[in-house]
Amino acid sequence: MSGQLQDLDHLYMQHALRLAANGLYTTTPNPRVGCVIVRDGDIVGEGWHVRAGEPHAEVHALRMAGDRARGATAYVTLEPCSHHGRTPPCADALVKAGVARVVAAMTDPNPQVAGRGLAGLAAAGVETASGVLETEARELNVGFISRMLRGRPWTRIKLAASLDGRIALDDGQSKWITGAPARADVQRWRARSCAMLTSVETVIADDAQLTVRDFEVERQPMRIVVDSRLRVPTDAAILRTPGVLVAAAVDGPNRAALEAAGAEVALLPGQDGRVDLAALLLLLGTRGVNELTVEAGGVLAGALLQAGLADELVLYQAPVLIGRGRAMLDFSLASLSERYAPRVVERRSVGSDLRWTLRFTDPAQAFQA
Amino acid sequence: MSGQLQDLDHLYMQHALRLAANGLYTTTPNPRVGCVIVRDGDIVGEGWHVRAGEPHAEVHALRMAGDRARGATAYVTLEPCSHHGRTPPCADALVKAGVARVVAAMTDPNPQVAGRGLAGLAAAGVETASGVLETEARELNVGFISRMLRGRPWTRIKLAASLDGRIALDDGQSKWITGAPARADVQRWRARSCAMLTSVETVIADDAQLTVRDFEVERQPMRIVVDSRLRVPTDAAILRTPGVLVAAAVDGPNRAALEAAGAEVALLPGQDGRVDLAALLLLLGTRGVNELTVEAGGVLAGALLQAGLADELVLYQAPVLIGRGRAMLDFSLASLSERYAPRVVERRSVGSDLRWTLRFTDPAQAFQA
Repeated sequence: MSGQLQDLDHLYMQHALRLAANGLYTTTPNPRVGCVIVRDGDIVGEGWHVRAGEPHAEVHALRMAGDRARGATAYVTLEPCSHHGRTPPCADALVKAGVARVVAAMTDPNPQVAGRGLAGLAAAGVETASGVLETEARELNVGFISRMLRGRPWTRIKLAASLDGRIALDDGQSKWITGAPARADVQRWRARSCAMLTSVETVIADDAQLTVRDFEVERQPMRIVVDSRLRVPTDAAILRTPGVLVAAAVDGPNRAALEAAGAEVALLPGQDGRVDLAALLLLLGTRGVNELTVEAGGVLAGALLQAGLADELVLYQAPVLIGRGRAMLDFSLASLSERYAPRVVERRSVGSDLRWTLRFTDPAQAFQA
Repeated sequence: MSGQLQDLDHLYMQHALRLAANGLYTTTPNPRVGCVIVRDGDIVGEGWHVRAGEPHAEVHALRMAGDRARGATAYVTLEPCSHHGRTPPCADALVKAGVARVVAAMTDPNPQVAGRGLAGLAAAGVETASGVLETEARELNVGFISRMLRGRPWTRIKLAASLDGRIALDDGQSKWITGAPARADVQRWRARSCAMLTSVETVIADDAQLTVRDFEVERQPMRIVVDSRLRVPTDAAILRTPGVLVAAAVDGPNRAALEAAGAEVALLPGQDGRVDLAALLLLLGTRGVNELTVEAGGVLAGALLQAGLADELVLYQAPVLIGRGRAMLDFSLASLSERYAPRVVERRSVGSDLRWTLRFTDPAQAFQA
């Protein structure tokens, strides 16, 4: 391939990725996908997947392109689908429209597609390429890829702590350690998440709803409460918005009342009378949860970390010191050599706080089939 | 003053400040001072104060300038002295050499000088100015200024912690949380400090010497051990290098042995059988300690902070998580509103660690007489 063609491929794929990102808050459980159709250097069609059950990105772009799709190149951030889902296969639509070349950022991790989309296109005489801006494309759908390949969501722990690693004083005071800009930033993580995970302790202490506020969204994330002994109060604020799953280790008299209050109760007994967190994440995988954000105390966050279930830590660090208080992560190491040394993906100022993005899982490595 | 002259004043004062910084590791208990003599746009003399008892910066610069000092402008980072100390007054020497104009970055906080140097020059017909790059000049001698105006050293707490605020596991394992570049960087703080402060607990646990290693220095900092009940072992590594002061709250049988091992013992009883930290810092002030760096555990660091005696915190933060362990700062707040919110002076990468420089004291504010 000539260098110039490669540069153009990058350029159009970048545009397709920007289009895909329009679906950041809406496509769940589907991936975010963008498509650009180019003929003779002109963008003749573009589109993105908006929400499940509605047309895929390719269909929007082909509709816009019309006859001009004939002989054109289509850039898609994810391999076109080859299977009949709620909509007909996009690979067929691209062939039918006479597209001459299809460039994908990545193959579809969905086992129902997994290369068959591009193979079908090639068999139909369409030139195909894959891997253009693949890293960026994987990043955009890190949750979807996790669910497809591991059966569980990409799990992000969000913490707001002082510089000395405390999320609250011992008596629970935590309002507020970080500033308003950091707290506003947190809303975006909630909005892009399919589900939020918390603990009954946090529900009881803060009575948080864990829904997106301050900016408009057309869907709220599911909310999951880890609650071994079904202690969530039936008048908890979190139950006001539908879509709550209470994960318990043992059944209890409170169950009927919680179900009457609109919550679903799942029994997932693990060791020591606790909820089996690995089983919970697999259950969320079957429910189409791609990205899961954890907002809880140090106990649940520490348990996820030690169970190897935490993929990412987003830490808002306020330049304040509070001394004794609740630890941001509660777990024990036998030796310093066992310490967690996540990869620092980003360090960025948010207001007067510092936001760290740290990864325990490398999407490129851990998701290789 | 014309803008051009002001620019030139800044330029030459910057040069004088760079010269002064050559004395960073040697001038104690004297301030770091640089001097540049300029005639007709040429630097005809320059110098810096090297060590106490030796000539001041002005003398070095005047010697180099010789006759060319006549009618010249002298730039000094600190007001020339007017009193007879171990060397004759520099103000007199400048007049005698025929210098026409003296520009100082700041007046001397030393009550024996405090404006008299510049006043004497003006009375002798020399044009004077002060306040050129004053902030930078104050920064260079923050410890000297603290001692002159508050009677105690500028007190810097150095900590090396994990991202979750731990300096060690509960069993004391702490080697190493931060990386080699951060540990090397620490040596520079030790080298510029007049004294190092630690606790008997740290001496017993780590048997650290707290001297400068890995690069050559002509003097080692004094080392102070807060040791209420005189528990420092007489074979402790810290005693190998002379210049150790053990601050105790009560006298004990170990005292003679410690003194025989070369340590000085000072009894500074405070409340609850502890050492009176404020009295200790005043004692260090009388001993000529300008900059004091604390390398200890969270208990001593927390006590200094709560006593209002900590001016600065230099925190090396490693992007690792270690869970339960020893807190970097051990103190308690009754309410979150009492939290410490130091000013973030700098945040800088040192190897894979992040170095925060945080200030509880604003040198410009707190030192105003």
